Amino acid sequence: MTQDYPVYGRIDGPIVMIGFGSIGKGTWPLIERHFDYDASKLTVIEPDHAQANFLRQHGLKHLQVAITKDNYREVLGDLFSEGKGFCVNLSVDTSSLDLMKYCRELGVLYIDTVVEPWAGFYFDTQNNAERTNYALRQKVRDEKAANPGGPTAVSCCGANPGMVSWFVKEALLTLAKDTGHDTTTPTDRDGWAKLMQSLGVKGVHIAERDTQARRVPRPRGVFVNTWSVEGFISEGFQPAELGWGTHEKWFPENGHSYDTGCQAGIWLERPGAITRVHTWCPTPGPQFGYLVTHNEAISISDYYTVGDAAKPEFRPTCHYAYHPSDDAVLSLHEMFGSGRQQTKHHILTEDEIVEGIDELGVLLFGHKKNALWYGSRLSTEETRDLAPYQNATGLQVSSAVLAGMVWALENPMAGIVETDEMDHARCLEVQRPYLGPVEAHYTDWTPLQDRWEHFPEDIDDSDPWQFRNVLAS
Amino acid sequence: MTQDYPVYGRIDGPIVMIGFGSIGKGTWPLIERHFDYDASKLTVIEPDHAQANFLRQHGLKHLQVAITKDNYREVLGDLFSEGKGFCVNLSVDTSSLDLMKYCRELGVLYIDTVVEPWAGFYFDTQNNAERTNYALRQKVRDEKAANPGGPTAVSCCGANPGMVSWFVKEALLTLAKDTGHDTTTPTDRDGWAKLMQSLGVKGVHIAERDTQARRVPRPRGVFVNTWSVEGFISEGFQPAELGWGTHEKWFPENGHSYDTGCQAGIWLERPGAITRVHTWCPTPGPQFGYLVTHNEAISISDYYTVGDAAKPEFRPTCHYAYHPSDDAVLSLHEMFGSGRQQTKHHILTEDEIVEGIDELGVLLFGHKKNALWYGSRLSTEETRDLAPYQNATGLQVSSAVLAGMVWALENPMAGIVETDEMDHARCLEVQRPYLGPVEAHYTDWTPLQDRWEHFPEDIDDSDPWQFRNVLAS
Ligand SMILES: NC(=O)c1ccc[n+]([C@@H]2O[C@H](COP(=O)([O-])OP(=O)(O)OC[C@H]3O[C@@H](n4cnc5c(N)ncnc54)[C@H](O)[C@@H]3O)[C@@H](O)[C@H]2O)c1
Ligand SMILES: NC(=O)c1ccc[n+]([C@@H]2O[C@H](COP(=O)([O-])OP(=O)(O)OC[C@H]3O[C@@H](n4cnc5c(N)ncnc54)[C@H](O)[C@@H]3O)[C@@H](O)[C@H]2O)c1
Repeated sequence: MTQDYPVYGRIDGPIVMIGFGSIGKGTWPLIERHFDYDASKLTVIEPDHAQANFLRQHGLKHLQVAITKDNYREVLGDLFSEGKGFCVNLSVDTSSLDLMKYCRELGVLYIDTVVEPWAGFYFDTQNNAERTNYALRQKVRDEKAANPGGPTAVSCCGANPGMVSWFVKEALLTLAKDTGHDTTTPTDRDGWAKLMQSLGVKGVHIAERDTQARRVPRPRGVFVNTWSVEGFISEGFQPAELGWGTHEKWFPENGHSYDTGCQAGIWLERPGAITRVHTWCPTPGPQFGYLVTHNEAISISDYYTVGDAAKPEFRPTCHYAYHPSDDAVLSLHEMFGSGRQQTKHHILTEDEIVEGIDELGVLLFGHKKNALWYGSRLSTEETRDLAPYQNATGLQVSSAVLAGMVWALENPMAGIVETDEMDHARCLEVQRPYLGPVEAHYTDWTPLQDRWEHFPEDIDDSDPWQFRNVLAS
Repeated sequence: MTQDYPVYGRIDGPIVMIGFGSIGKGTWPLIERHFDYDASKLTVIEPDHAQANFLRQHGLKHLQVAITKDNYREVLGDLFSEGKGFCVNLSVDTSSLDLMKYCRELGVLYIDTVVEPWAGFYFDTQNNAERTNYALRQKVRDEKAANPGGPTAVSCCGANPGMVSWFVKEALLTLAKDTGHDTTTPTDRDGWAKLMQSLGVKGVHIAERDTQARRVPRPRGVFVNTWSVEGFISEGFQPAELGWGTHEKWFPENGHSYDTGCQAGIWLERPGAITRVHTWCPTPGPQFGYLVTHNEAISISDYYTVGDAAKPEFRPTCHYAYHPSDDAVLSLHEMFGSGRQQTKHHILTEDEIVEGIDELGVLLFGHKKNALWYGSRLSTEETRDLAPYQNATGLQVSSAVLAGMVWALENPMAGIVETDEMDHARCLEVQRPYLGPVEAHYTDWTPLQDRWEHFPEDIDDSDPWQFRNVLAS
């Protein structure tokens, strides 16, 4: 039995994939499956020679070079000499901003899954305000403002950031329906923001529980994760960050706000991956998540702002609340406890994972029905049936890249966009076949419920969804 | 080939084991092996019917009853009607103090591994000062002071509390030798305290790393540990506690000291099992440990005090710094994150453990050679060869019980004693065959070395071994 996959369009000109790690390797079969393109024009730029064999065996052109500030114009200029095509950036240590600017200059479509900086950014400066995702994102937003329109460059279109922004919209429509609210789909940012405001949503957790596991006890000295270890360590050592909502009455002692840019976020003087929050997912119920900084924490709070950036009438709180796989929890515990980054890294593969799902969704809270989790509950088992070379985490990301590429092809002159600004219905239409069960779950859980009576905490009993209550002590 | 085990003496009269959990079950074969006694006079009191089959198959008399405040005099009075014998208390939810008092009244030798309270103590009161090990221990010390001498009752003679107190003495003698200090073994408390003081020791971590693991990923909703889950949860929810040394210049904001009793300890307004400290063990090097309260933290600081209890000339800081098995780390993370104690408990057995050791020692710090770890590095593999029905953790405890029983038989009228007050050389002589490699390791590690440069912490750079630096932020 052969499967019949929809082909969403033709990519004229070269396709250049930068980075062929866990996400790149999983995205490639989806590109192959869903686009019409000239196979001889696909090039993979990947400095790691460990991928060379796989690439050769699959007849993929391999440019074994690391993209740097000094060579990117030359390397990409050569590959895209026709002035068209698609650049799919799934690497670490390359500047998303510089690459997207240059692609737009060349007339080439561009997509990435994170605003990545050039190598060195994450650890070289001692200035924590400069190491935030707020700073990284703001530069992309400034570029968009300075140079509106033009060739489409999709910024941050993975699972999160990415897909979760589409889930927020689906969740809002679900909530509207379930509370008897007007269910007309808004047509612009202002409409979406006012919908969220009128539904009484106070904030959003990007609430994730990854239960993927293998049968080998985690070896000491190895950072084990279900996606880029390098990426997770880098973001884990950035300061904790969140979009800061108008309902917040308390301000963290170690918090810093901004008076330039979108002003939607704040950051804390503490690494995100050691900062715990109380959150909720369908499988475990209440659980700890790590307040790891992510682009979507700022972008969602920004997108749903009603009124002036500096003095908004409404803005939701938004942040990541990530319970990675158990092996990653242990890896963090070891890393922070030893004061050293592990030099050995391992990404769990679909072959060795024996159980578990990546349960990734958005938890909209503070409204009439208290809280609604909306998301994908994809198992590795189901992933194996859906697409090769990736675990559940990978497929949630790679299928978002696919959806973003389709949207870009269909909207080739949309300028620089974030996923909040894209047609969420079309994107989810493309992505959904790869997400396993996509479900809505209401819960009456609030962060006031997890308290241990013997040790009174500095919380606000009168207002359950204050960040003060969400932040674990 | 049959092995020839030394028989250390005859126990006249009944032997009553209270509790036949992970430690009771492991202690029984050692009692059988090393004592001469009348087998028909051994009774196991164990309320859990799950143990009935094992007990019957091994021809052990089983009294399936829970010892309570209301029945203990009747039950034990009946069993010990001859007015001699040995009571080995390895249960939870029974009052060590009441049982030892009654045994002494009856003329029966007594041993336990923890000052356990009657059921309810750990969670029923909201008064945290009353829920401390300081409070539990002080009552035993008060009883000793009020009724000195008489039949021997050994208090807290497991691995820790217990064996580690003997390790402290061995470590002091090792340090004396290695630094060219007078190596005469002190003969009394005062001599030991002055030896520690003159060696410049500032404090002691009970530094443990348990790496025992099985091949099954930890199931959600199950608290997995290598010894009593109930015991670990109870102590984990007690306030963090430590013996407070004279070198400390800083006092924790959430700390409380005492003005009655031995005054050697302080407690913090925070559960121990969620409070992390920086510590060191040979296998991992630097690591996080949990500041779980333990009797030995107070007893060691008390024992080595020079001068007045209220205004000592010297006193070491002392506390537990426990990295339990990875599955237990994940169990704690789940428990604190969900706000609920898991109702399913599992103790890893020697059959299912595929790798790992229990590395349990004392880290003496602040002296000329910086820090010395002295302890047992017992693997489950070796444990299987040494004794049945237990993992490495179990054997470190059960062999300490054996040593304590031998000492009590040899010193039957020593009154109430803690392990600090016993002949450590004799006890270790008995215990050592069961401890695997017992090793001394010097390290130049200090808690200043684990810092993350991007997030300056509130620490004292001028004095590495301040508790302020040890406490993780
Ligand atoms: N938005 C999301 O949901 C999401 C999810 C997962 C990963 N990501 C991001 O996607 C990217 C890739 O993730 P991954 O799991 O595949 O990471 P990975 O670590 O498995 O792979 C990264 C790849 O980039 C390559 N690389 C390193 N330096 C390079 C350079 N200078 N030029 C070109 N390639 C270079 C590496 O050799 C490696 O193969 C990361 O930036 C990660 O943060 C986003
Ligand atoms: N000092 C140490 O190093 C050390 C180490 C491990 C355990 N311990 C202590 O030893 C004790 C036993 O540990 P374990 O791992 O065997 O625990 P466990 O939970 O495996 O077993 C405890 C046993 O006590 C029994 N019990 C419960 N209530 C009782 C009652 N009212 N009367 C009689 N028995 C009762 C239970 O049924 C159970 O079988 C605990 O108090 C624990 O804290 C001390």
